[in-house]
Amino acid sequence: METAFSQWKRQCLNKLDVSKKGSVDEDIVHIVSLLNSWDNYFTTSSCSGRLILIDGVPQSAEVHKQNCVWLFVSHQKCSSDDLMAALAKSSGDAVMKFEPFILHVQCRRLEDAQLMHSVAVNSGFRNSGLTVSKAGKIITAVRSTHGLEVPLSDHGRLLVEQDYIRFLVQVANQKMEENLRRIQRFYQNLQAALSAEQLQKLQIPDTPSSQQLQNQKAPHRLETEQREEGEETNKASVYKRRRKRGQQVGTDCCNVDADSSPPELEDCLDLFT
Amino acid sequence: METAFSQWKRQCLNKLDVSKKGSVDEDIVHIVSLLNSWDNYFTTSSCSGRLILIDGVPQSAEVHKQNCVWLFVSHQKCSSDDLMAALAKSSGDAVMKFEPFILHVQCRRLEDAQLMHSVAVNSGFRNSGLTVSKAGKIITAVRSTHGLEVPLSDHGRLLVEQDYIRFLVQVANQKMEENLRRIQRFYQNLQAALSAEQLQKLQIPDTPSSQQLQNQKAPHRLETEQREEGEETNKASVYKRRRKRGQQVGTDCCNVDADSSPPELEDCLDLFT
Repeated sequence: METAFSQWKRQCLNKLDVSKKGSVDEDIVHIVSLLNSWDNYFTTSSCSGRLILIDGVPQSAEVHKQNCVWLFVSHQKCSSDDLMAALAKSSGDAVMKFEPFILHVQCRRLEDAQLMHSVAVNSGFRNSGLTVSKAGKIITAVRSTHGLEVPLSDHGRLLVEQDYIRFLVQVANQKMEENLRRIQRFYQNLQAALSAEQLQKLQIPDTPSSQQLQNQKAPHRLETEQREEGEETNKASVYKRRRKRGQQVGTDCCNVDADSSPPELEDCLDLFT
Repeated sequence: METAFSQWKRQCLNKLDVSKKGSVDEDIVHIVSLLNSWDNYFTTSSCSGRLILIDGVPQSAEVHKQNCVWLFVSHQKCSSDDLMAALAKSSGDAVMKFEPFILHVQCRRLEDAQLMHSVAVNSGFRNSGLTVSKAGKIITAVRSTHGLEVPLSDHGRLLVEQDYIRFLVQVANQKMEENLRRIQRFYQNLQAALSAEQLQKLQIPDTPSSQQLQNQKAPHRLETEQREEGEETNKASVYKRRRKRGQQVGTDCCNVDADSSPPELEDCLDLFT
């Protein structure tokens, strides 16, 4: 019998891509392929990072992207001429945004999601987090703090000079480069973590937990529930190694517990860039 | 014997606030107090939302906030004169940011964290997520997509006109207002969810799960592990009701599985504002 997870995975990978673009972005095809080739993971949505210009309804504080006119989208570095040409078409309140890499990975077990989260945070994606639905869907969202959001026109009237647009595009392109470096770091850390995981499985082939991988579970039961203490101990060293880069602590939150563990503090620290 | 969670909670609440500001922000004192008054929750860090102006090192794509000069911080609406006065002190690359409400809530059990996540997403904080550490710390981060990040000076040279600063402060103040509305919504939804939870406990006082609440658990074991099917069923209706507002699905991601459940899709949808 097929497990609920395997069924979700099969259905998801056979389904139509309903996004605007309709395909996986070039710069992250290798990551999506790697994850989908592993039994315990599959990706449900992704974007490699993009620079967008959206024309919103003036004076509306609650505008959804889908109600706006998309004047420009680029998943690569672009020129200020490209942006200026798109801006010329604005008749509302245009806003330029740089949105970094985002990836949603559905995971078989809670510990798979923890591994994914750990890899993400250690690769610089510090706004990453898990969702666990009642139906048993466990998803890690890989998210960065590394954005830009700049109002550029008011009722179609340009608010800034061309020099500013040039500076802004330069900043956005730097962010695009940094975003790609983080994607690369994420890919390398992911490969290392998955290899370590596989190696561990090969070293302890007959533990109850490896047998459990073969079991057919109800979707709402986390397989960690029946995991043995022994494997937890084996895994701890790998996990700690992966966590090392996340050990910094800072104090620019408004209210912070002195001993909070790094990931949650880091969330609030943010990168300035 | 004190549970690990109760110990963490006691230690955290007795500890020094190590943030820059050193206290909980005025607009969220009621939320922090409410959460800390419940046995299954405590807050580890928070910020009600703020407008900041930071002077960064020029040409550096990887600047941490703590290495920058903070020229201005306001947790309330502000005037363009305030921002202009602060900008005059810039000697590097100044960036204005609006950062919305952020809250980290440590939760006793995974299902408590799920409830918190559900309340957060339904209140408009769609970048919220969980972290589960190996030590057993389960934390929900309440996060919004509702920001601004605008470069304003280059090596101390102002890049925009005063008119633009006025427009920008107006946009930031609108976001501050919307942020407060969401905080209020979060508080109301939180009260409702916690009351429903309490009511349910009173209605089924002798189920194994309510007995489990009294048990002393090792920190790395999630108490949901031993939860009975019966209570899962009882809880489902409350959960579904709370999830209703999150049912919209959109298509502006780059690559999206047609049937992904709302929270993860919403993460990628973002609010334009």
